[in-house]
Amino acid sequence: MDPRLQAYFERWRGEVDRALGRFLPAESAPPRTLHKAMRYSVFAGGKRLRPVLAIASAEACGRPGGKVLAAACALELIHTYSLIHDDLPAMDDDDLRRGRPTSHKVFGEAAAILAGDGLLTLAFNLLAKNGNMNDSSAVRTVEIISSGAGSAGMVGGQARDIEMEDGAWTKLPRPRRIRVLRSIHEKKTAALIEASVLAGAAAAGAPAGKMKRLSDYGRKIGLAFQIADDILDVAGNKALLGKKGSDRSNRKLTYPAIFGLETSRKKARDLVRGAKRALAPFGKRGWVLDRLADYIVERTY
Amino acid sequence: MDPRLQAYFERWRGEVDRALGRFLPAESAPPRTLHKAMRYSVFAGGKRLRPVLAIASAEACGRPGGKVLAAACALELIHTYSLIHDDLPAMDDDDLRRGRPTSHKVFGEAAAILAGDGLLTLAFNLLAKNGNMNDSSAVRTVEIISSGAGSAGMVGGQARDIEMEDGAWTKLPRPRRIRVLRSIHEKKTAALIEASVLAGAAAAGAPAGKMKRLSDYGRKIGLAFQIADDILDVAGNKALLGKKGSDRSNRKLTYPAIFGLETSRKKARDLVRGAKRALAPFGKRGWVLDRLADYIVERTY
Repeated sequence: MDPRLQAYFERWRGEVDRALGRFLPAESAPPRTLHKAMRYSVFAGGKRLRPVLAIASAEACGRPGGKVLAAACALELIHTYSLIHDDLPAMDDDDLRRGRPTSHKVFGEAAAILAGDGLLTLAFNLLAKNGNMNDSSAVRTVEIISSGAGSAGMVGGQARDIEMEDGAWTKLPRPRRIRVLRSIHEKKTAALIEASVLAGAAAAGAPAGKMKRLSDYGRKIGLAFQIADDILDVAGNKALLGKKGSDRSNRKLTYPAIFGLETSRKKARDLVRGAKRALAPFGKRGWVLDRLADYIVERTY
Repeated sequence: MDPRLQAYFERWRGEVDRALGRFLPAESAPPRTLHKAMRYSVFAGGKRLRPVLAIASAEACGRPGGKVLAAACALELIHTYSLIHDDLPAMDDDDLRRGRPTSHKVFGEAAAILAGDGLLTLAFNLLAKNGNMNDSSAVRTVEIISSGAGSAGMVGGQARDIEMEDGAWTKLPRPRRIRVLRSIHEKKTAALIEASVLAGAAAAGAPAGKMKRLSDYGRKIGLAFQIADDILDVAGNKALLGKKGSDRSNRKLTYPAIFGLETSRKKARDLVRGAKRALAPFGKRGWVLDRLADYIVERTY
């Protein structure tokens, strides 16, 4: 990672973690198992990519990152809830995530489902309670994040992904496969990443023109991120990711499965180039977003 | 039911159902199974008590019910999601709800979990998008509803309820049992009912003094409602409720289990009396809320 980006990332990761610690209910507050489970998954070593995207986006729009911490944390809560639910036995059935036992393995399935529900609900509570946003910005962040996380976004992508599991996609003709693949990736991953970029900008009160550019940037790096994830699942270091290569063994629909590794890498690079072009109007203020775009795929080279 | 209340209920149930139909994604919009599952549970014959409470509360504060339909529908979406997740095999494991197969029985567990997630997320999207509220009212409704539905409210109550399942509560001394029971009921059921009353008032722009009265009213009828539910589960007509008496067979912590049927009935009646007293400042405008309080327990006499 670029050293300036790394310093930025580390600084804000610290701030975000402290803010999450303040926003989440204490483990001693009843029901204790639920609050323990909520904290366990939030503090399981996530990179905090979505919060950092929101912060960098707000700063690209001229507002200090510290003023949009609630929106940044809300995004991490939603990302965490989605991982807890995705790992459930009825979904991807994963026992490990980042090398640690998944929520349902530690707390049981009922507590894991409820911990996810609690995190999702808390995310919107944070947005509504945040004193650093005016009401208009708060409403916009709720709308942006709920759209990206809902049935037309992240939840919809996960639902479609599960429908296509176990090789159901192999029965589709190739052009249809490609459309389905792209739609799943755009919804499952890119929608919340785009929402992260937009929510930071909305919390900063950005005008429509900038929002449009950031939407383009966010969608492109979001898709590049999921392609990179697919590539790592095939080519990457399993031990580093801390999970087994379950996607491949379930015969999931992925970019490498359709296009092969080299073409997938090229597609990711092209998306990153396009994303960086969308940042032109932000000039120097867009430098973090610019380097974040590179970072998102650099793991796959 | 009081005939005037019944006419009010029927009128608004129709309006709420039509609004829900507009707000929910079409079944033809992909992913189809997900959207089908979301609609299946929302249109499964619910009474629409929470929306009608929100509407009646707004009207008690002088705003036409038609102006708070988005808030009313958001509450029903959250109530529905909670039923879908509560019915899951890992939770209460119910095959039937209101005489129809539960979501996971029809669509599978993964789709049921995601349908719940999608409904919860859509609820906040509705609140943010609703053109009939100003931003300040929209933010207040998001805060009120997310507090009532979250880990300090509904989700927390369900988590604690599950912890106490299978007779775990029988090991507690009696005063502790009573505290735990009351806390579960207040969170699991009363918190969202109170939030329904408050959200309607907030959407109507009600001042703090009225909010305080309505909070008192809402909490009391919410607790009375859950006590009535406990009573019906023991004494009521199972066929009418369309579900098996699973609470008793799981040895759940309920009011009749602790206090017996007669004392439970008396407690519910006392709560209703207290709730009606809290409505004094609303005069004639509070008539629907007044009769709704009676309705909530009348099924148990």
